[in-house]
Amino acid sequence: MSSRIITLTTDFGLRDPFVGLMKGVILSINTDARVVDITHHITRHNIFEASQVISMSYAYFPPATIHIVVVDPGVGGTRRPIMVLSKDHCFIGPDNGTFTPLFYEKGVEGMRVIHLTSSHHFLKTGTSTFHGRDIFAPVAAWFSKGIQSSMFGDEITDYVKIPSLQVEIEEGNRVEGAIIYIDHFGNAFSNIKKGNIDALQSESRGREMRIYCKEMHAPLVDYYEEPAASMGDLLSIINSFGLLELYVFRDSAARKCNISVGDKVSVMLA
Amino acid sequence: MSSRIITLTTDFGLRDPFVGLMKGVILSINTDARVVDITHHITRHNIFEASQVISMSYAYFPPATIHIVVVDPGVGGTRRPIMVLSKDHCFIGPDNGTFTPLFYEKGVEGMRVIHLTSSHHFLKTGTSTFHGRDIFAPVAAWFSKGIQSSMFGDEITDYVKIPSLQVEIEEGNRVEGAIIYIDHFGNAFSNIKKGNIDALQSESRGREMRIYCKEMHAPLVDYYEEPAASMGDLLSIINSFGLLELYVFRDSAARKCNISVGDKVSVMLA
Amino acid sequence: MSSRIITLTTDFGLRDPFVGLMKGVILSINTDARVVDITHHITRHNIFEASQVISMSYAYFPPATIHIVVVDPGVGGTRRPIMVLSKDHCFIGPDNGTFTPLFYEKGVEGMRVIHLTSSHHFLKTGTSTFHGRDIFAPVAAWFSKGIQSSMFGDEITDYVKIPSLQVEIEEGNRVEGAIIYIDHFGNAFSNIKKGNIDALQSESRGREMRIYCKEMHAPLVDYYEEPAASMGDLLSIINSFGLLELYVFRDSAARKCNISVGDKVSVMLA
Repeated sequence: MSSRIITLTTDFGLRDPFVGLMKGVILSINTDARVVDITHHITRHNIFEASQVISMSYAYFPPATIHIVVVDPGVGGTRRPIMVLSKDHCFIGPDNGTFTPLFYEKGVEGMRVIHLTSSHHFLKTGTSTFHGRDIFAPVAAWFSKGIQSSMFGDEITDYVKIPSLQVEIEEGNRVEGAIIYIDHFGNAFSNIKKGNIDALQSESRGREMRIYCKEMHAPLVDYYEEPAASMGDLLSIINSFGLLELYVFRDSAARKCNISVGDKVSVMLA
Repeated sequence: MSSRIITLTTDFGLRDPFVGLMKGVILSINTDARVVDITHHITRHNIFEASQVISMSYAYFPPATIHIVVVDPGVGGTRRPIMVLSKDHCFIGPDNGTFTPLFYEKGVEGMRVIHLTSSHHFLKTGTSTFHGRDIFAPVAAWFSKGIQSSMFGDEITDYVKIPSLQVEIEEGNRVEGAIIYIDHFGNAFSNIKKGNIDALQSESRGREMRIYCKEMHAPLVDYYEEPAASMGDLLSIINSFGLLELYVFRDSAARKCNISVGDKVSVMLA
Repeated sequence: MSSRIITLTTDFGLRDPFVGLMKGVILSINTDARVVDITHHITRHNIFEASQVISMSYAYFPPATIHIVVVDPGVGGTRRPIMVLSKDHCFIGPDNGTFTPLFYEKGVEGMRVIHLTSSHHFLKTGTSTFHGRDIFAPVAAWFSKGIQSSMFGDEITDYVKIPSLQVEIEEGNRVEGAIIYIDHFGNAFSNIKKGNIDALQSESRGREMRIYCKEMHAPLVDYYEEPAASMGDLLSIINSFGLLELYVFRDSAARKCNISVGDKVSVMLA
């Protein structure tokens, strides 16, 4: 228990000592904690991006991992600090919608949300602008030492959700999705799943499947360097998260085709 | 003892393998050492910046932590490698002024500085351009294993100090400070402390307190997202280090108001 | 055995969660593994750069360290995943030439290369674009737990080598080398070794040694800040890897003198 893993996802960047200080606070409370960075380069204040990153990441960590996610424009204001508990994982951060995809994915059942109010578990600094260091890091460290979740505060049900991008399926003919993440290579992840593509193909009866984004057709290939993949063309692939991804071989699809988060992606039978 | 924490603060960046090599050297000597990055993005050769970062960071780590700080334009020349010992912490790096704020803050009493000369504790490479890897990392690793500080060299008292920015207080009326650090959000930290502000306010007898930087008034607010905080205005806040900080909500104060390290900040009673 | 160190060298960058996910997978298999980043900022798809970085880095880690190197433009295609075993170290990555300098340096003897085919050691994701997470990380983690290398696949001898830049020595008179790496300070590492310089000097009989790159003379100095080192001049030094390095004091030699990887460096007796 006491050697539990704690992950960090923030928009703090790595230039300032802020991330190091969170680790110092964690290790001051639980010397055996193991801290792993997921990323500190979430776009500043972009709660949606943080929500996508944590929801695509957490399942690759061992059960009982504690995930701290801090993208927190409202720090020091009235937004609540929370702990979200599922069967296998624990998430800690501000109540601003960061954990929305988890609520949708896992459903309300088996998910508990606790309003963190036990200030004796917080770092006493008399300041209110760095809850990552003063609230979320120490609560994660104390929880990693085996303190019961109920000791940190009361359960709440009115936690914040942000609008999420859902896939729309038109009966056996068409799937409409959207870009939810763009990686640093410029590959654009959509929210359309391998299962959506498979379902459409199983109903195709010989009709060709076509994939569109920004009015460009992006043929589906099996691997990035496939011989059919002409240099410079927009292509699509089922990526490592099981999502339909748009890419340009050895180039940036985002820049080359001007693709942004929120852009529509359509898969249809001709 | 042998599982002590060693932190790293450098201007090496993360593109080259240099930081990784320091960790390899440390783990080759003490397999149980736990290495934590504070930052590797100190502005190249900026000793003042390194001195501010380590002095605002070290206290958040557990007692007995060893802090390596390497911003070292004079590497391989005549500047000495040193170890600075306070009651609870150990600092290792070049004798170029990096540790100046610690000397001021802690005073001479209880602080010992050792000139690192025990070359049998160094890595033998026959080269002289990477003391981070060849001197500071191995000395930290051997010290973390419990070797006495006196085994690394003799105590010195003529260590280097750099000029530091001090707060000036005009009797009950005005406090003059300066910007000492700008974070990657563009928030500008001054050296004026919460205590300075509190002292001024206690003498105000109804007079309004005004805060100026670059001839702009920066009203003091309680938290970043405070309703009174108009978008785009320069504002001030007591930040998480207990320092007066200038900021622009969801923007960069440094860029927007052209604020640099060394710029003056005045707090006065109208 | 089970607390072995695993290093990571990739072109994934730190913005996306990809590196964190590799660590999550490793820790899910071997909770005691210790993961150290060498760099994640290899230039995208630059196999030569990755090969230089790992060959200059691995020897600073303890014996039995496992090095994962993933710069993998052909991921998901026909290129093989491999494990390279020398007496003291283990390297894991794609068979695309990344490990070429190791083959030259260590020779064929005592070096074994295994084609990783034991898919029961891989992560089952049904996708093929992230072998860092799905093949290399889990194989490293299983190997760190003591599973024999022969359990991961058969030995091969037809592994891929990329062209490497060799030093040419003209009898006692001249050494011709090339730039093999440029660090983030803009210092340019050549492949000319201290031994090459020493051999030339021992035969100089009073003749002056001159060092040229881009038709500029770069006098050899003993340390970066040497008094003889005029600001702005191109200079040379034996760097911390025992290689002849071209630099400009407190500036970027690469930018200032337009030096790139592959550029020739000549050392000659006048």
